[in-house]
Amino acid sequence: MGLVVQKYGGSSVADAEGIKRVAKRIVDAKKNGHQVVVVVSAMGDTTDELIDLAGQVSPIPAGREFDMLLTAGERISMALLAMAIKNLGHEAQSFTGSQAGVITDSVHNKARIIDVTPGRIRTALDEGNIAIVAGFQGVSQDKKDITTLGRGGSDTTAVALAAALDAEVCEIYTDVDGVFTADPRVVKKAKKIDWISFEDMLELAASGSKVLLHRCVEYARRYNIPIHVRSSFSGLRGTWVSNEPRGDQKVEHAIISGVAHDVSEAKVTVVGVPDKPGEAAAIFRAIADAELNIDMVVQNVSAATTALTDISFTLPKTDGAKAMAALEKQKSAIGFDSLRYDDQIGKISLVGAGMKTNPGVTATFFEALSDAGVNIELISTSEIRISVVTRADDVNEAVRAVHTAFGLDSDSDEAVVYGGTGR
Amino acid sequence: MGLVVQKYGGSSVADAEGIKRVAKRIVDAKKNGHQVVVVVSAMGDTTDELIDLAGQVSPIPAGREFDMLLTAGERISMALLAMAIKNLGHEAQSFTGSQAGVITDSVHNKARIIDVTPGRIRTALDEGNIAIVAGFQGVSQDKKDITTLGRGGSDTTAVALAAALDAEVCEIYTDVDGVFTADPRVVKKAKKIDWISFEDMLELAASGSKVLLHRCVEYARRYNIPIHVRSSFSGLRGTWVSNEPRGDQKVEHAIISGVAHDVSEAKVTVVGVPDKPGEAAAIFRAIADAELNIDMVVQNVSAATTALTDISFTLPKTDGAKAMAALEKQKSAIGFDSLRYDDQIGKISLVGAGMKTNPGVTATFFEALSDAGVNIELISTSEIRISVVTRADDVNEAVRAVHTAFGLDSDSDEAVVYGGTGR
Repeated sequence: MGLVVQKYGGSSVADAEGIKRVAKRIVDAKKNGHQVVVVVSAMGDTTDELIDLAGQVSPIPAGREFDMLLTAGERISMALLAMAIKNLGHEAQSFTGSQAGVITDSVHNKARIIDVTPGRIRTALDEGNIAIVAGFQGVSQDKKDITTLGRGGSDTTAVALAAALDAEVCEIYTDVDGVFTADPRVVKKAKKIDWISFEDMLELAASGSKVLLHRCVEYARRYNIPIHVRSSFSGLRGTWVSNEPRGDQKVEHAIISGVAHDVSEAKVTVVGVPDKPGEAAAIFRAIADAELNIDMVVQNVSAATTALTDISFTLPKTDGAKAMAALEKQKSAIGFDSLRYDDQIGKISLVGAGMKTNPGVTATFFEALSDAGVNIELISTSEIRISVVTRADDVNEAVRAVHTAFGLDSDSDEAVVYGGTGR
Repeated sequence: MGLVVQKYGGSSVADAEGIKRVAKRIVDAKKNGHQVVVVVSAMGDTTDELIDLAGQVSPIPAGREFDMLLTAGERISMALLAMAIKNLGHEAQSFTGSQAGVITDSVHNKARIIDVTPGRIRTALDEGNIAIVAGFQGVSQDKKDITTLGRGGSDTTAVALAAALDAEVCEIYTDVDGVFTADPRVVKKAKKIDWISFEDMLELAASGSKVLLHRCVEYARRYNIPIHVRSSFSGLRGTWVSNEPRGDQKVEHAIISGVAHDVSEAKVTVVGVPDKPGEAAAIFRAIADAELNIDMVVQNVSAATTALTDISFTLPKTDGAKAMAALEKQKSAIGFDSLRYDDQIGKISLVGAGMKTNPGVTATFFEALSDAGVNIELISTSEIRISVVTRADDVNEAVRAVHTAFGLDSDSDEAVVYGGTGR
């Protein structure tokens, strides 16, 4: 039995009862002969409460101090969790990100891990302890200041520690049973996925699936750390994410792994752009200079009679106002006619490595949308993903239609072949 | 203008408003040309709330993890305070005890400071920052674990930093106006003391005065750091505690500096102890082995006819049950008759260097108590202090009587001569 890294999110440790339940689950893993490292987030709403307090003393909380403040949250949950474990008769020690050797760059509020030196964790494990580590935080390499990794950063902490400690698996405990073929709140017949490749998971995460964050999956793929996403409430087997399935991991030989959707984006259309070299570059330089990230980009074919074209792109709604302002400022320099802003859009993405060798996927996808009466506004594709933008109101219906069309519904086994032993 | 260390207690930073008020006071000191280091406690009831949470997950919270938990409190207040100062247009950085170089021993929950290496604080100050430091906490020298200094430890942090940084003064901001000749809640005519010596302040702290803790005053005396105790609400000049008064510090040439009282102790009487060498040692070895601290000890004269004696001692009520159990266990070994426990006692102490050269003090003290109808149960003295134990119910009346008898009442100038320039 080797080393296991377990990560528990804020909803799993929302109160004393939750902490005691999680402690029991951790002790069970220890009893099974594992060395156990636990990464924990702040309790329930703690982080939001701290953000609220910060807003009361300062309209623009500063980077370094804001990180110092927020890291108090994990400090509380990890110490309480260690106490709860000790109370069950097992040795436990908690460590801050800094103590655990989580070294980051200096970009406060969204730092990136650049190294993990878990010497103290190793020692604690060798002395028979369960090691509890604060998620979401680290210490900057140059200034030795406390940093945070941004929302969802605890998953990345867990995977990074698993890599540095050469763990067997990184278990991400959450409040759902695993990764599903679609959001179960939208598609009642969505199925839990038993195994999925890093590549497909990366595309799902990039397309709106909230279970695992893109950065965390990327890290796991780079260091080849299998992730097991599962519920801290049910304790059932969840979804394995790895390079290759093990013998006991059920592989569904469907063309499509899942359908993701996202209604958090807005569409900006730059109308009447001169159809000549350098125009698109000028537009996206203006966006980049405002430090905004964009998602899809589509340029329509130029209308032959006017020599003008339209360029559309999507980006998070929260960045919409900034993008419009940045473009408006460059209007005369770029020379476009006008800007259009639309935040009533939704994106539906079909993800699966199988589409590489199945040319009919795009057609089936568009037929399903058409049959459901859903109009397509933008299309964008990668090797293993097709995404379309529709009206936000149409998204749920579109997701259900596509899920059915590709045989993903749980009572339909037509397109599904089980591999491995299952269980 | 030199360096000033300011310490703000939890009641001064209880909410966002308090933090903003304190930030303004700090900025004022900076504007006056000082380099400013601020030591801050956890907000209001935060520490009690964290203790309560710990109790919910574990009946006996463990030392190391308990310290990890509690230190989250100052992390929150110090980060918010730094943000509030930045919001006023001044640079500020917050530092944990560990970052500030507060090195302690490894006794969790009541660690002692053994060194202060404030290199990062010095750098922050030299770069023009106001440095905010978490009170109450440090890092252990051997294991690099987070430690806490016990209740009131923030005052000690402030004095220790003031010593390490060679500060001009350590200002202790609190919710009262300074040190008084008696507790103003008991004695309406109690006067604020303008200046008091370290020695007298140490005796007052040891005798029940709550304004400054004994350990903090001891530290200040050792490194000769003047303390200025004052209100964070009024901003008025408070009480200076130092070796020698400066020209502008009013010295009251009264025999007595103040009257302290304490109703937090209980009295244990060991009845029928054989009057032979080694008996007292056996009793107090039993108490010491139980890791309990005692205050006064009195042995009555042996009754000639029985060759038996009684030994009484006082100790905090919170340790009473443990002391009784420890003694009961050794009953046959020590060979006493019985134990008596009395938690309805109070202690009144008269403190002042003047009593060294004024033989009438003890007589005046006892006459005042007698006139007030207060019975004395135990007496104990040091060179500059006389303490008596009475019934708890008599304490307030006794304190008032003694305060008047020694001319300390605020409208009586008879025994008071002002020195210095006053203001």
